Amino acid sequence: LTRPDMNYLEPDLFQYSDTQGTRSFREEIAKFLTDYARAPKALNPEHITVMNGCCAVFATLSTVLCDPGVNNFQKLLFTEGFTNILAASLLVIGLCLSFVCVSSYQLFFFQGIRVRALILINPHNPLGDIYPAQLLKECLEFAHRYELHVIMDEIYMLSVYDDTTFTSVLSLDCLPDPERTHFMWGFSKDFGMSGIRVAVLYTRNHDIQKAVNQLAVFHSCPGPVQHVLSQFLRDRDWLDNVFFPTNKKRLKEAQNVLVDGLADVGIPVLKSLGGLYVWADFRKFLRSQTFEAELELWQKLLDKKLLISPGKAFECYEPGWFRLVFSDSVDKIYLCIQRLEQTLHSFVAEPVTNNTASTADALCNPEKDSSGKPSNPPGEGVSQLKNVLIY
Amino acid sequence: LTRPDMNYLEPDLFQYSDTQGTRSFREEIAKFLTDYARAPKALNPEHITVMNGCCAVFATLSTVLCDPGVNNFQKLLFTEGFTNILAASLLVIGLCLSFVCVSSYQLFFFQGIRVRALILINPHNPLGDIYPAQLLKECLEFAHRYELHVIMDEIYMLSVYDDTTFTSVLSLDCLPDPERTHFMWGFSKDFGMSGIRVAVLYTRNHDIQKAVNQLAVFHSCPGPVQHVLSQFLRDRDWLDNVFFPTNKKRLKEAQNVLVDGLADVGIPVLKSLGGLYVWADFRKFLRSQTFEAELELWQKLLDKKLLISPGKAFECYEPGWFRLVFSDSVDKIYLCIQRLEQTLHSFVAEPVTNNTASTADALCNPEKDSSGKPSNPPGEGVSQLKNVLIY
Repeated sequence: LTRPDMNYLEPDLFQYSDTQGTRSFREEIAKFLTDYARAPKALNPEHITVMNGCCAVFATLSTVLCDPGVNNFQKLLFTEGFTNILAASLLVIGLCLSFVCVSSYQLFFFQGIRVRALILINPHNPLGDIYPAQLLKECLEFAHRYELHVIMDEIYMLSVYDDTTFTSVLSLDCLPDPERTHFMWGFSKDFGMSGIRVAVLYTRNHDIQKAVNQLAVFHSCPGPVQHVLSQFLRDRDWLDNVFFPTNKKRLKEAQNVLVDGLADVGIPVLKSLGGLYVWADFRKFLRSQTFEAELELWQKLLDKKLLISPGKAFECYEPGWFRLVFSDSVDKIYLCIQRLEQTLHSFVAEPVTNNTASTADALCNPEKDSSGKPSNPPGEGVSQLKNVLIY
Repeated sequence: LTRPDMNYLEPDLFQYSDTQGTRSFREEIAKFLTDYARAPKALNPEHITVMNGCCAVFATLSTVLCDPGVNNFQKLLFTEGFTNILAASLLVIGLCLSFVCVSSYQLFFFQGIRVRALILINPHNPLGDIYPAQLLKECLEFAHRYELHVIMDEIYMLSVYDDTTFTSVLSLDCLPDPERTHFMWGFSKDFGMSGIRVAVLYTRNHDIQKAVNQLAVFHSCPGPVQHVLSQFLRDRDWLDNVFFPTNKKRLKEAQNVLVDGLADVGIPVLKSLGGLYVWADFRKFLRSQTFEAELELWQKLLDKKLLISPGKAFECYEPGWFRLVFSDSVDKIYLCIQRLEQTLHSFVAEPVTNNTASTADALCNPEKDSSGKPSNPPGEGVSQLKNVLIY
């Protein structure tokens, strides 16, 4: 972005342009996604709509796919912010994780709720899991069977570690229902540019795209921004040899520092393969195994300027899980660990006022568990979150 | 924008920021509007929300002010695009021109339609009129009487010619209903930067602003764009001594070339004091005084690559009026006049196929009318648009 030729802007870029996104930007995005998502054949720039962020893409798709004024989709969302954001647009889309797909769908069906779409976030947010190719295909077939649209949110597509194989929906040779499969990606996560407000929708469904393009006038991106990002995507040498290796190295280092630091404080985390966060088990520090206790702990941490996301925000059904973002400088992560240790120490040492079960000894005697399962909180049975790998 | 210091961007600008707009940008906008709209006291940056264009501001206000899923407002819009754009967002806001305010309101009232807001575009689009201070106050009092919100769209605020006195709603000492008076402005027109996608809402109504700020996440502006525009607004010396004088001089020159050229072709235009367009009377060239004939003429001009806006797009109730934008190079305006003359000449010379009334002699013998009233089309009585000054 600091190269001198980045600063030359044609006057046309300051005028109204195609609300779908400028042709040249869509061409660059198509080439970029073809290569980085490993599409079997070149993606078509005409199937791309550029908008100002994935929130805008979600809001527009919800308007296009749902009947106006009706909450068609059950609120079952696993990404912080989605719930509030989509509720604000008056329509809420249901996210069914693979293992709850069928049961959730049947539940909604019997409740008379018309489910229209399945949102899959891959890599998963907040778990950091990656959908294996086979599971991804099963999800797509499930959706096809029930005539559901699939909204594939792959915004963390290139934030994947440890040489993990990531299967983008764009890389599949044959989709069960291509007309109902929609892909989205943006610059916020993989390029660390959430402030630039650019995301894209890729859909082969002509009718949906036509409707989305009509609404895109409310969510358009500045011409100069589209131009600068086109140049950015075009510089493959820099992306492949400088940006992505450096970015991945730094993120991996930050992740290690956080995971090790949490382990020292006695907090296990799920094995995460992608995303910019870890999903951590604070259950042993809750005063009771309730969401009220989770909120109490969250508030205590926030008072010490530690902003982490409680599981409740992701509709997690078990209290005590938190998402911690590590895409920051290592210094700040060390500071975070230090504050976390101090805060948890004083928190468990505080006299319990409204609760009978004391966890005052939790920090002093964290359970050591090397079995590969999450350690269980005091006074609690086994975790309801099964089969999860932890560090 | 080409100054070297414009290119230095702090990393924070690339991260998520306040969805209301960055604090520093809102401060610059507040100072700018205080001075250029001649506010009696400094505007408060906290009352400003930054969004990606006035369309987004309108869409958000319609969502906030109206009940979901209901067309609360009658479609009575006078700006091209508004109709489509707001219809697309499922809610349509009514614009009442001053002279139709009371009758329209009563009409809607008796039809059981709940009108919530009055949109005033000042300078007017497409007429180019400016609301005198007294009329503006009467409109505000009318709205107050009926408990209507007023949405003041002053996007052409600084595109005013001939030393005309323009009264911004922000300049009024005492508003009849400040909690229901909302102002909007943007960079698209006065700075000729429609492609930068930045507009602002100024409202003192805390509840409305709170709701708008929630929705602003779908319409946010890139941090780097807000930063560059802040610097732009801060450079008062350049704005006052270079940009605005040059811009106004060029626009006035372009307007003169267009108005004179149209007069030579026999097309009178309304006396326009603001905006980037003139409202022109093509009635004598219609094959019949119908909107079908207006559309036919529009299509004929479009075939010759002359894109002008038919009155029907602004819900004009008399066929034959067109809006012509002059904010372009003088060369292109001369080319426009030349093509217009050729196209109209061949159009009126064509044999009429589906219409009995021939206007073939209209161009050859354009009516000369120096009375200050629009000339009347052949076979038609007096114009329904009364009391309009023409060049």
